[in-house]
Amino acid sequence: MNSQQIHLASRPAGTPTADNFTLQTIPLPELKEGEILVKNTWMSVDPYMRGRMIDRKSYVPPFQIGEALEGGAIGEVIQSNHPDFPVGSKVSSMLGWRTHYIGDGTGLTRLPETTLPDQSFLGIMGMPGMTAWTGLFRIADLQPSDTVFISAASGAVGSIACQIAKMHGCTVIGSVGSQEKAEYLRSLGVDAVINYKEATNLTEALAEAAPQGIDVYFENVGGEHLEAALNNMNDYGRIAVCGLISQYNATEPQPGPSNLSMLIIKKLKMQGFIVFDHWAHYGEYANQMGQWIAEGKVKWEETVFEGIEQAPRAFIGLFEGKNKGKMLVKL
Amino acid sequence: MNSQQIHLASRPAGTPTADNFTLQTIPLPELKEGEILVKNTWMSVDPYMRGRMIDRKSYVPPFQIGEALEGGAIGEVIQSNHPDFPVGSKVSSMLGWRTHYIGDGTGLTRLPETTLPDQSFLGIMGMPGMTAWTGLFRIADLQPSDTVFISAASGAVGSIACQIAKMHGCTVIGSVGSQEKAEYLRSLGVDAVINYKEATNLTEALAEAAPQGIDVYFENVGGEHLEAALNNMNDYGRIAVCGLISQYNATEPQPGPSNLSMLIIKKLKMQGFIVFDHWAHYGEYANQMGQWIAEGKVKWEETVFEGIEQAPRAFIGLFEGKNKGKMLVKL
Repeated sequence: MNSQQIHLASRPAGTPTADNFTLQTIPLPELKEGEILVKNTWMSVDPYMRGRMIDRKSYVPPFQIGEALEGGAIGEVIQSNHPDFPVGSKVSSMLGWRTHYIGDGTGLTRLPETTLPDQSFLGIMGMPGMTAWTGLFRIADLQPSDTVFISAASGAVGSIACQIAKMHGCTVIGSVGSQEKAEYLRSLGVDAVINYKEATNLTEALAEAAPQGIDVYFENVGGEHLEAALNNMNDYGRIAVCGLISQYNATEPQPGPSNLSMLIIKKLKMQGFIVFDHWAHYGEYANQMGQWIAEGKVKWEETVFEGIEQAPRAFIGLFEGKNKGKMLVKL
Repeated sequence: MNSQQIHLASRPAGTPTADNFTLQTIPLPELKEGEILVKNTWMSVDPYMRGRMIDRKSYVPPFQIGEALEGGAIGEVIQSNHPDFPVGSKVSSMLGWRTHYIGDGTGLTRLPETTLPDQSFLGIMGMPGMTAWTGLFRIADLQPSDTVFISAASGAVGSIACQIAKMHGCTVIGSVGSQEKAEYLRSLGVDAVINYKEATNLTEALAEAAPQGIDVYFENVGGEHLEAALNNMNDYGRIAVCGLISQYNATEPQPGPSNLSMLIIKKLKMQGFIVFDHWAHYGEYANQMGQWIAEGKVKWEETVFEGIEQAPRAFIGLFEGKNKGKMLVKL
């Protein structure tokens, strides 16, 4: 049995290109006792993976050149020498970017019995959904009376954050980069949408969209978005810093916001987080979101590329705004 | 009776100059029933006052051109028609920048009976001391095992923050702008001192001073200091944003730190605060600090200018690093 895998060929300088990746075919050994062979059916590409392509100390070690990339994946057990993972079981893992792998169960989670599509565990029922919920409730202490600004609002995390905040009773403003995405956001019930590519002044656009000011900013973007949010925050506002996608491909250090004095003037809290630190609370999230889905209260979109060889293109597409909702690769 | 007062003549562009101030002599009316006449004996100049010289919405309204400035002051009642403030009582107020004023008791606090010098209620027993304590404990949740970095560490707030953190068991690194101030800081028991004017690379200087990393940053400065702190923070570090003095006199917007991604990578919390929001806890602070002083555990310095006409010079001196400890004007 062979596994097709995407390896990191070289570290990207700026926006990743196809050259930074190679497709390798690796023979897999025979299964030993206690092992299983998994065929991946879906894999996730996420903006945070860009950070792991840089050779630096971080919360997860950097990807190594000449080795397979990693990331969320859903697969099916096709051979088993392990009683807990019979053939036909579906498992989620961090062993994406490959068609097959052998495991002994470590780091694998069997999908629960649900009527949800498997790939939802890479999106709304998985890391992106849990990220949205964690940022809003565990970092920003979301209250029903809050006005919430969410950047990259049509993405995997943003589109779920918008809906959770609406269900909690909040007024929600989202920013997106196209009219099509703006329409999508309106279809989710968001109160006001900013197309940042058409706004000449993001501070003014946000002031117009939220004349009452912003209590919570769910930060996915950085740069001008953060500056505009700081200018429009209300006293005691909270900023959950989830991502800074505008910075990820920068080849030179990007200056930060010139208005950090707003932190003092408005007594703001700004806090970065990594969802994996909060994973002990996943059950709480999954129960709540499962119920919202059963009640028909949430929607989600997927942008799907097909075939392992398309994975680099899907990943690069994240930085070109090619996805609406969760970007996935079907294997 | 006349009151000599410093008025704002014009809004400073950049660092304030003598031209921005005028000394006015204003006749005071006769005392009415329920009123007192106070002769100020000490007044405070503080960096935050620079912010009130800008015409913008903030937590306190801006100073008005052609009117007396305001700030912390200690005075003595010299005429009284008010039973709660007999002649000879000492009062603290926000009615500094003037030699005399008439009041009805509103906004005035009688100094407690202590053996402390009156002006300590403008320093270690007043707003600057309370600011240091609030930032460390109520914002940064200081723990005895923490390594703490304090910028502007020889100033009124910084020098108290250094000593409180040391008494709490922390390792303390301070940054200052001269060798004389560095010596002063060492005399307070600080573990390592950085003279930022001599450091070619503040990130490296801080890494050398705190190879174990920084858990809490008490931010008084901004700019390169913040960038260096972010680079040296440990996971789950806390940044209490008290002041950004490097920005106060900027005539153009100053770019913020280029490494805000550290907020995510290291899961940091950064929070701005205004001490007046925490004033309900002043009694707790004053009891604790009074005890430390009685036990001879804390030291403080004062830099004193004499005469109301010197007040602008004292204020301007804050931005030239002219003070060690609390900058005061004796009236």
